[in-house]
Amino acid sequence: MGPFEVTNEVLSPTRYLQYVTHPEAGAVTLFAGIVREWTNGKRTVYLEYEAYVPMAKKKLAEIGSDIQTKWPGTRIAIAHRIGILQISETAIIIAVSSPHRKVAYEANEYAIEQIKKNVPIWKKEIWEDGEKWVGGQTYKPSEGGSDDSSLLLCANERIDEKKSRNDQLDSWNSR
Amino acid sequence: MGPFEVTNEVLSPTRYLQYVTHPEAGAVTLFAGIVREWTNGKRTVYLEYEAYVPMAKKKLAEIGSDIQTKWPGTRIAIAHRIGILQISETAIIIAVSSPHRKVAYEANEYAIEQIKKNVPIWKKEIWEDGEKWVGGQTYKPSEGGSDDSSLLLCANERIDEKKSRNDQLDSWNSR
Repeated sequence: MGPFEVTNEVLSPTRYLQYVTHPEAGAVTLFAGIVREWTNGKRTVYLEYEAYVPMAKKKLAEIGSDIQTKWPGTRIAIAHRIGILQISETAIIIAVSSPHRKVAYEANEYAIEQIKKNVPIWKKEIWEDGEKWVGGQTYKPSEGGSDDSSLLLCANERIDEKKSRNDQLDSWNSR
Repeated sequence: MGPFEVTNEVLSPTRYLQYVTHPEAGAVTLFAGIVREWTNGKRTVYLEYEAYVPMAKKKLAEIGSDIQTKWPGTRIAIAHRIGILQISETAIIIAVSSPHRKVAYEANEYAIEQIKKNVPIWKKEIWEDGEKWVGGQTYKPSEGGSDDSSLLLCANERIDEKKSRNDQLDSWNSR
């Protein structure tokens, strides 16, 4: 099982497909979360991801174990990229194999949902006229946004947000 | 949209991911159907796929159009390999992109279900002690099997099966 990676390197789909392919697998699903330029008419210039890397890797591995318990016979590999990402670059790859296809779809979608909820990775969206931290994905800012993937923090709340992120890291460290 | 291919060549996941990636896509799903060695304790040595190629390509393109109608904003590419495939080789790739992830999963799974029902591609399983045509995927033999992916024909029914396949081709040609 695995690997479960958080990395500055470009993510290679083939590599993660290979990790989960084996003679008892009949189906492989791969999810790639890619940087979208346009959201509700607003243009993203690029994204920046930050992670609390040791905890993020640990959480990804926990999600992998969880999936193998729920769906025996699956194999799973996950990689999240951090740093600056340009439009159409891949931020996350989830590869799942299974003897039959239904489980490969289900387990893959379950993985991304769990990652969005439980893994300490933050995204900054940079537009032509500003920027905004989007997530951490496990805490709620005082004002929520409507973005599909995450919770929003306004750029002018950066001080509160930094404090909030530090509080969150403290909370993870004490788990 | 597309391509929709039926080919003897090895299928490259990266190629099909690239076809569907564009600046308004935030999610890409890829399904790879791969040759499984073990099914219910029985060892497959290799598989052989045959297709009625012009109709298979047409049907794949129809499934692509259907998906774009059901889920506007998606892009889809499908490739099915034919000929002899070894264990863990990829028989089919479906790549779907969408602005958001839920649709990318749904549309991809819908595609494989439609392909199994409607595309004239036949699979022969070769075991150590015999072989069996599995599918065409759109007609019912007089005796059905319980395999996940298809309908079974026994090796000793090859004459009936050849006739049945020809009848099916006639039926497609007259549509």
